Amino acid sequence: MKKLINNAEDVTVEQLRGFDRAHADIDVQFDPNFVAVAGGAKDRVAVISGGGSGHEPLHGGFVGMGMLDAACPGQVFTSPTPDQMYAAGKAVAGDKGILQIVKNYTGDVLNFQMAADLLRDDGIEVRNVIIDDDVALKDSLYTAGRRGLGTTLIAEKVCGAASREGYDLNQMAALCRKVNTYGKSMGMALTSCTTPQNGKPSFDLGADEMEIGIGIHGEPGVERSKIKTADKITEALATRILTDEAYTRELSEWDADKGDWVEVETTDITFAKGDEVIAIVNGMGGTPLSELYTVYAKLAEIADQHGISIVRNLVGNYITSLEMAGMSITLVKVDEEILRFYDAPVKTPALRWGV
Amino acid sequence: MKKLINNAEDVTVEQLRGFDRAHADIDVQFDPNFVAVAGGAKDRVAVISGGGSGHEPLHGGFVGMGMLDAACPGQVFTSPTPDQMYAAGKAVAGDKGILQIVKNYTGDVLNFQMAADLLRDDGIEVRNVIIDDDVALKDSLYTAGRRGLGTTLIAEKVCGAASREGYDLNQMAALCRKVNTYGKSMGMALTSCTTPQNGKPSFDLGADEMEIGIGIHGEPGVERSKIKTADKITEALATRILTDEAYTRELSEWDADKGDWVEVETTDITFAKGDEVIAIVNGMGGTPLSELYTVYAKLAEIADQHGISIVRNLVGNYITSLEMAGMSITLVKVDEEILRFYDAPVKTPALRWGV
Repeated sequence: MKKLINNAEDVTVEQLRGFDRAHADIDVQFDPNFVAVAGGAKDRVAVISGGGSGHEPLHGGFVGMGMLDAACPGQVFTSPTPDQMYAAGKAVAGDKGILQIVKNYTGDVLNFQMAADLLRDDGIEVRNVIIDDDVALKDSLYTAGRRGLGTTLIAEKVCGAASREGYDLNQMAALCRKVNTYGKSMGMALTSCTTPQNGKPSFDLGADEMEIGIGIHGEPGVERSKIKTADKITEALATRILTDEAYTRELSEWDADKGDWVEVETTDITFAKGDEVIAIVNGMGGTPLSELYTVYAKLAEIADQHGISIVRNLVGNYITSLEMAGMSITLVKVDEEILRFYDAPVKTPALRWGV
Repeated sequence: MKKLINNAEDVTVEQLRGFDRAHADIDVQFDPNFVAVAGGAKDRVAVISGGGSGHEPLHGGFVGMGMLDAACPGQVFTSPTPDQMYAAGKAVAGDKGILQIVKNYTGDVLNFQMAADLLRDDGIEVRNVIIDDDVALKDSLYTAGRRGLGTTLIAEKVCGAASREGYDLNQMAALCRKVNTYGKSMGMALTSCTTPQNGKPSFDLGADEMEIGIGIHGEPGVERSKIKTADKITEALATRILTDEAYTRELSEWDADKGDWVEVETTDITFAKGDEVIAIVNGMGGTPLSELYTVYAKLAEIADQHGISIVRNLVGNYITSLEMAGMSITLVKVDEEILRFYDAPVKTPALRWGV
């Protein structure tokens, strides 16, 4: 196993120690259970996320002014525990409550619900909003329904800014839901990746094979084939995203009136000519940045052909799968509200502008 | 070959096209020969660099306000041509001349000298400053003398800021030389990498092997061994850097009085207790960010033990070798001048703060 680690059991704690030393300028507080902004979110809604490690910079890299107030890292490819989320919530929440942004993986969804129940028992209001933006499949090994991909970090950015503008908890949850229904993603892999615990590749791909529609834990995709050109691959992903039909499903939400979790029917947008979008060309960890630019060139051309205007973009590693080679594309439709909050100042290890 | 490319012959142009589409907000002008800031450097010294592609984000990712005015990308792992550098210089230089920051690889050094001679024939003053900060070896396959590594991007950042503060060409060259003598780096590899042109790994490393002291083109290092823990690897690199003796060599510089290139004796600092440094833990391209934090944790501990204070740091992919797994460590001693220019606002694709 070719990794820069000391001990497979302690990798996450070791990495957090380095993160803590490196980002003193971001003013994060360090705890083995979470990464959080120092001082918390006293007079505004706290924004918290988390998930398995191995997808860096998500989520710890997005903790800081204007984005997340706390992130809970699980073990590699494993949900954090409700205890971690509870501790993070207690550490940063003021009296305006907590928005928990949850990628749609079964463990994350259940654990963030348990954490919400625990926090509510302590008198802290919590809303969970699920991100399920992966258009590749309707279900996967890891989730009931579509998986959460790159729209997550746009939701974190936008909601972090809205919190600082004084949105209340219900407004924050509504905004986060909107971003989720406005965002669609799809990924592909050229190689597998190896978790420190397993020590061998999570799956096998032949020397001349790739897989389209794969998830960030190496969950199977929609098509395994011979490697194609970057243009063909980009076209396959972008076309699937741009032509994805309005997708309706039920997502779990807390109903404060009923005092219970309820299933809420949720329908995504379909992209249409004239839409303005934020585009992410995301590396899976082991693909050179230069190759992502080849993908972006084609994506921009395809967007032009569809009459879609890319008004902001991110090209780089944002939601990775350890050292997997491959990439994912995310498009999030913007309106005035989303774009304004996206453009607001942010100071985190992985995203920084305006300060 | 597992790459997101269309055509091995055109990869660099394809990638530049995507870079150009993605970074409209940085206001770069695009040319197949170079990436440059729109408008150039009319009333101040232009700062230009360049080198083989495959080391992204270096150098194109550092073009923009407060850093490089232009970068010339060669083919993968191949020096750009004097024609490219000449075109870039003509595009951005005003009447204050050009500082060319050159990594110490034989092709780059010769081609930047030829470009300087061509530009000088057109009445543009040029100074070339060589960066040779790799403490692993005194000579390599690719260079006479030590190779250029991570100190390069600190030199680019610091000199870009100095230009905007009105430093003249001689002051800029002196500052750049100082940064070079204040900076030391060393790298290691867990895996090889594959250039699009070759289609197979540049060198072989056994499944349980690593190489210490390797260069960014896979040039041999000082020791091939079984993989060790991240702590042991970090200790080997950091100790070598921190205990490197004052290194004296002759570096080519243009002598304006003599009207010729002369060899100037140059001596590096040795780090000492009480020094303040900028630290870079740089991923080679295929190593997850999380593992770089494990390295940073140990590096910070070792710096503490040596009485060295890390006052700024960068942890991530800054000077890569395609998809190679591995990392390099760079430490650059700072004084008031260097730190002030490092902290000055910068707006480039890969580094951004203060704006």
